[in-house]
Amino acid sequence: MPVQPRTPQGVLELLPAQQIAFQRMLDTIRRNFELFGFLPIETPVFELTEVLLTKTGGETEKQVYFVQSTGSLKQGDTPEMALRFDLTVPLARYVAQHEHQLNFPFRRYQIQRVYRGERAQKGRFREFYQCDIDVIGKDSLPLGYDAEVPAVIHGIFSQLAFGPFTIYINNRKLLRGLLESLGLTVDKHADVLHEVDRLGKMERAEVESRIAALCDAPTATRLIDLLTMHKGDSRGALAALRAFEPANANFKEGLVELEQVYVHTLALGVPPAALQINLSIARGLDYYTGTVYETFLDDHPKLGSICSGGRYADLAGHYTKSKLPGVGISIGATRLFAQLIELNLIATDTRSIAQVVVLNVEAALASEYLHIASALRAAGINTEVYGADDKLGKQMKYADRSGAPIAVLLGSRERDAQQVKLKLLRENREVDVPRADLVAQIGQLLGA
Amino acid sequence: MPVQPRTPQGVLELLPAQQIAFQRMLDTIRRNFELFGFLPIETPVFELTEVLLTKTGGETEKQVYFVQSTGSLKQGDTPEMALRFDLTVPLARYVAQHEHQLNFPFRRYQIQRVYRGERAQKGRFREFYQCDIDVIGKDSLPLGYDAEVPAVIHGIFSQLAFGPFTIYINNRKLLRGLLESLGLTVDKHADVLHEVDRLGKMERAEVESRIAALCDAPTATRLIDLLTMHKGDSRGALAALRAFEPANANFKEGLVELEQVYVHTLALGVPPAALQINLSIARGLDYYTGTVYETFLDDHPKLGSICSGGRYADLAGHYTKSKLPGVGISIGATRLFAQLIELNLIATDTRSIAQVVVLNVEAALASEYLHIASALRAAGINTEVYGADDKLGKQMKYADRSGAPIAVLLGSRERDAQQVKLKLLRENREVDVPRADLVAQIGQLLGA
Repeated sequence: MPVQPRTPQGVLELLPAQQIAFQRMLDTIRRNFELFGFLPIETPVFELTEVLLTKTGGETEKQVYFVQSTGSLKQGDTPEMALRFDLTVPLARYVAQHEHQLNFPFRRYQIQRVYRGERAQKGRFREFYQCDIDVIGKDSLPLGYDAEVPAVIHGIFSQLAFGPFTIYINNRKLLRGLLESLGLTVDKHADVLHEVDRLGKMERAEVESRIAALCDAPTATRLIDLLTMHKGDSRGALAALRAFEPANANFKEGLVELEQVYVHTLALGVPPAALQINLSIARGLDYYTGTVYETFLDDHPKLGSICSGGRYADLAGHYTKSKLPGVGISIGATRLFAQLIELNLIATDTRSIAQVVVLNVEAALASEYLHIASALRAAGINTEVYGADDKLGKQMKYADRSGAPIAVLLGSRERDAQQVKLKLLRENREVDVPRADLVAQIGQLLGA
Repeated sequence: MPVQPRTPQGVLELLPAQQIAFQRMLDTIRRNFELFGFLPIETPVFELTEVLLTKTGGETEKQVYFVQSTGSLKQGDTPEMALRFDLTVPLARYVAQHEHQLNFPFRRYQIQRVYRGERAQKGRFREFYQCDIDVIGKDSLPLGYDAEVPAVIHGIFSQLAFGPFTIYINNRKLLRGLLESLGLTVDKHADVLHEVDRLGKMERAEVESRIAALCDAPTATRLIDLLTMHKGDSRGALAALRAFEPANANFKEGLVELEQVYVHTLALGVPPAALQINLSIARGLDYYTGTVYETFLDDHPKLGSICSGGRYADLAGHYTKSKLPGVGISIGATRLFAQLIELNLIATDTRSIAQVVVLNVEAALASEYLHIASALRAAGINTEVYGADDKLGKQMKYADRSGAPIAVLLGSRERDAQQVKLKLLRENREVDVPRADLVAQIGQLLGA
């Protein structure tokens, strides 16, 4: 009795047409990372448990997958290794380990899968791609790098063409300064900012009452008023913040940073319509200390942020005494792709790898077909040859299903006339071309 | 006290310059797979243990890495999942699972990492890339596909340019026919072919005595004489085999197949110098039933075969009742890359992602630098901007170490003269170009 072939729950395994579309998405992301000079790295899928789990306890550890060899399992050892759950911890380990061989500021991109033992439910993946960039400075990292990040985001999502999108930027120092100016003590900042992050996902009244519970109702109202003023009007928000100007260092520094990042990002060619200062973007994690980013598809706000990140004060404190500040973003490509497929925003029906299928019209002409395929490939045209001596109808059905735009048909009649018949599969029409001109003509048809 | 940052043993983690070279190798392999119309698939890194380990016992199972979530580990459950140890079992599971949605013959490529709990020793990796192609037929698969495989291998290793190489082909049916003709019974075939596989790695006398131990000395001598005749002369070997012609079906079928694959491969443009019939290639695994392939770098025979594979009778018998014959090959990219690095056959010193580094000559001109970077990127030129207000010497050192060929220097003097200074970092010379002509001139310099 055969074993039922199936994947574990919580993974996204694609059929070829979808895999091609997904691969193009990753290729576009990579191409844009490289356009900004980011360097590729890859880290092992597993890390030593001791190295991966430096923080004891916490939510993350509960979701880790541990890895054990057969021998170690039999001996009942505790697992020495675990699968990475993000690309940030491996980056920290990588930079600390190879510190003296890297060129700082170190600009790296990394496109790999990560693993989380999530509960099985729709939209939650246990294996998914992350596409990350980070710039890591040694001791310090100038603010100019914070402006580059939204320019990369803009390049990627313009080319991916999933519709209009907006990159929101904010600054955590500015937020802290605002909280201070309202009399909120530092010990409350993390909790309040955690609630602020719910704005846009939850009704204002609800968020307001949650914040009020942490301080008082007038302060909560005042805070949300400030955070939502001039929404969609970045210049207006900056002017209002300047006018507000409380006398605390965090606020002042944060405002200068935010303004400079905004102006530099525009100088990098990001259009004002795609970039907005949004004071209610907080990024819950205390990890971020300055600029923060989120990105939304304008027509699909419910997807949430499709690309987020920010500036942090120190990447690798667990592994090295060097101070390594950085700024970066991450795209959760698997989740995004699955959502876009569901919204019908990914076309997969006419995608194929092969551009030409050479059909096996007469078995006696087999080596002729191989010569044709070989000439097309030499011209960089992806070509396959139908190998079986099947009826032409079956062959044509294969070519149609393959999604390739052109089928080549050569029988002895065409051969004698020094001609080749091309079937344009998507238009369902045929053209005869001279044998000597075949490669050039196919090149033209594909280029058209 | 910080944790010592380190990777587990048996993985290959690369510095950026090597990672770029490795990535180019994978890109070349992928490009050639696509040129032949192979379709991409990716499977999850882990499979259900029950699905992955269908054969009980065996060497493979001893090397498997099991995966467990924190919860399952705490409860002392046996692991439900394990990391894939090759791409063949996941392919079999994939094809059986998605059988009715695939277009047969199904041509897939897959470039992913696999995991084996090898003992730690040089050249043995616990995590390594495999780059596989397979063509899978339903019920049957014509021999024509066997000729395509060496054409793909030839395309890849010509472009990778690691030096001259030879693709060896043979046929397991022919080998079995030869054994039969020498009076060796079927029960001995596997053991004898296992020894035959050692020819070339071990002295002939040694192999001969090992085979003699399985039958008798004269038969062993006769067998090895036959297998090594006309070495390096494919046409001669074919003629001798035809003359030998014992009256058994395996030999006859195998000979016809071998000859046809040889002739068709040449018709696909593979030069005779790079393709050799080699009767002593046996591929130990009983999995292969017809054509078999191995590939050697002529100047580095000690590396062993760098790309191997063959024809098999049925891919997915464990998962489906459908008969799915196939033919395929695999390149162990990680091991190969590590060996080539050691032999100094991979140049990594002048590799970079960024083609241009725009230096920060005067902080007041910052937005000018961003405009230049943005214009270069729009022309498809990978560009980074040096963000810190460091001394020019430090900036120049960064640019040099980055490996980028060009640095852009623009101070107020150049700005006033509508000029830009380019430093060609690899030639250590400078040129002044008109500001208006900057992108075109850099494009030309990079193209040169």
